[in-house]
Amino acid sequence: MQKISWGIIGPGHIAQSFTRALKEVEGAVCHSILSRSPDRALQFCTEYGFTHAHSDIKQFLGDPDLDAVYIASPHSEHHEQSIAALNAGKAVLCEKPMTVNTEQAQQVVAKSKASGSFFMEAVWTRCLPVYQHISQWLANGEIGNVKMIQASFGINRAYDPNARLYDPAQAGGALLDVGIYPLTLCDIVMEQLPSQVLALAALAPNKVDQNLTVALKYDSGALVQLGAGIGVETHHGAWIYGDEGRILIEPPFWSSQSAKVFANGAHEPHIVCDTPHRINGYEYEIEEVHRCMALGQHESELVPHAASLRVMQVMDEIRRQVGVRYMVD
Amino acid sequence: MQKISWGIIGPGHIAQSFTRALKEVEGAVCHSILSRSPDRALQFCTEYGFTHAHSDIKQFLGDPDLDAVYIASPHSEHHEQSIAALNAGKAVLCEKPMTVNTEQAQQVVAKSKASGSFFMEAVWTRCLPVYQHISQWLANGEIGNVKMIQASFGINRAYDPNARLYDPAQAGGALLDVGIYPLTLCDIVMEQLPSQVLALAALAPNKVDQNLTVALKYDSGALVQLGAGIGVETHHGAWIYGDEGRILIEPPFWSSQSAKVFANGAHEPHIVCDTPHRINGYEYEIEEVHRCMALGQHESELVPHAASLRVMQVMDEIRRQVGVRYMVD
Repeated sequence: MQKISWGIIGPGHIAQSFTRALKEVEGAVCHSILSRSPDRALQFCTEYGFTHAHSDIKQFLGDPDLDAVYIASPHSEHHEQSIAALNAGKAVLCEKPMTVNTEQAQQVVAKSKASGSFFMEAVWTRCLPVYQHISQWLANGEIGNVKMIQASFGINRAYDPNARLYDPAQAGGALLDVGIYPLTLCDIVMEQLPSQVLALAALAPNKVDQNLTVALKYDSGALVQLGAGIGVETHHGAWIYGDEGRILIEPPFWSSQSAKVFANGAHEPHIVCDTPHRINGYEYEIEEVHRCMALGQHESELVPHAASLRVMQVMDEIRRQVGVRYMVD
Repeated sequence: MQKISWGIIGPGHIAQSFTRALKEVEGAVCHSILSRSPDRALQFCTEYGFTHAHSDIKQFLGDPDLDAVYIASPHSEHHEQSIAALNAGKAVLCEKPMTVNTEQAQQVVAKSKASGSFFMEAVWTRCLPVYQHISQWLANGEIGNVKMIQASFGINRAYDPNARLYDPAQAGGALLDVGIYPLTLCDIVMEQLPSQVLALAALAPNKVDQNLTVALKYDSGALVQLGAGIGVETHHGAWIYGDEGRILIEPPFWSSQSAKVFANGAHEPHIVCDTPHRINGYEYEIEEVHRCMALGQHESELVPHAASLRVMQVMDEIRRQVGVRYMVD
């Protein structure tokens, strides 16, 4: 099997989780780390068994042995780093959100198309086996026509204008960090833009979106209630309701290992799917990148560019309504 | 103890449930039934042990032995029947919604005030013991400041323009029938009008609101996601989220017998309250009416007129946004 040498930009918390999976995925090689801090790059290399530490992106991307780049830096860096990596002919797996607005996202997608280099937003949720089952259930009409979706993702972090989560310069706030997950769920189910978007937000003192409530409507009449927050811890299950039953995605829905189908009126499910992570859930997106690269594809069917763009468009509209702007907007 | 003789207008399904409780509440006397159909009135009297059957409201209300009227007719009748009963000096317990719009509701409240006759909207939820515990928890700061509320009430009834639920002439639709419950929950928690209301609806072919999603925001920044439907069966639990924890109201939240308080990050509750119904849950609103009548009050502190009016105002605004009008509007 072809070996794929991975480099990581941004050796933080999420890069650690990602690496734990990377080390166990067949064919993956832990190759290089890029951090603005040379010490941090070197320390991550040593601790996690990577072999090359960089603090300069040109050197990092200029390495001919580097095949694929995982971008795990703050949201505000994704656009520039993705473009640079695609220009260097590297495959890119970029943490969600792929950029901070639609215009940036369109540029990245156009670059991937033009260069023929693979680009995928690291929406691990879309790659989880449980979601393949859910999509199949929906296609099979197990719950009839979808009428409503409910999901929320809220974590409780005290307001701190110096923390990344609350930093407008780094595109902090609930929407891009956690709100993207219930929006992604809706996109997985509906595979289209909503026809109506209504949003309300509680803004932090520095105008970052701390908590959000969003209502969506689709052309079919399907309705959505979703919540997101970095100032409130919510219940993390999700429900997809059809006219003939419902699907419960067990919490946390964005990394779920189990889903159930209930008929109307039933307290017990008649279909249960348990798909425990083999490692920690990140293995599936890594394997999807490998699979697409082996086939010479520049995008993944599981996380298509069009889906990333749709979610980004909805996020732009939500920000417009609640009055949240980033410096690059 | 003073005996209170009850008469019921509208001997349908809900009147049956109500009567099961009425028969066991101390001091309550099953006195009279009013139905447009004399046969139906007589049959209900016989079956449930009432002693007087009427098909004329003047005769029904002219009975000097009648103390209290429970109005369980279609929504569209509530306004006229409540005014007539108050004019006759009877105490009134009127099924929710008390009327179909705010203007009608204000007239009923004004009549209660002017006549000194007791009026209470039959929002049994507000009278349930579990909600007394919840209100106390909120007052004690058990979950800190309320940041978010999530609740939905959806039942699945196939579209049938001849059924009351789908009949615009009888003010059918999801909002007044089931949507009022999550809105009531929000009002119990917040005790004020929301500062912002956003609503989306899927309308039935005859323009009745079949399914709804509503987002609310309060001055404090607290946000709400709520769902309602007569064309989709939803999960019926409810959550109140604060910055220091959450309250789960076990399904069905509108007639719940159990609630739990969780700290942030906790999977197990640290406070659990189980309050099984003594009969079927309707006993508490009946006892509240008796209590208020014994004290000579014209309204209840548990279901104050102002709260009923607030919920009605929000429902008017939701209907305005989704384009649902009744004939009396």
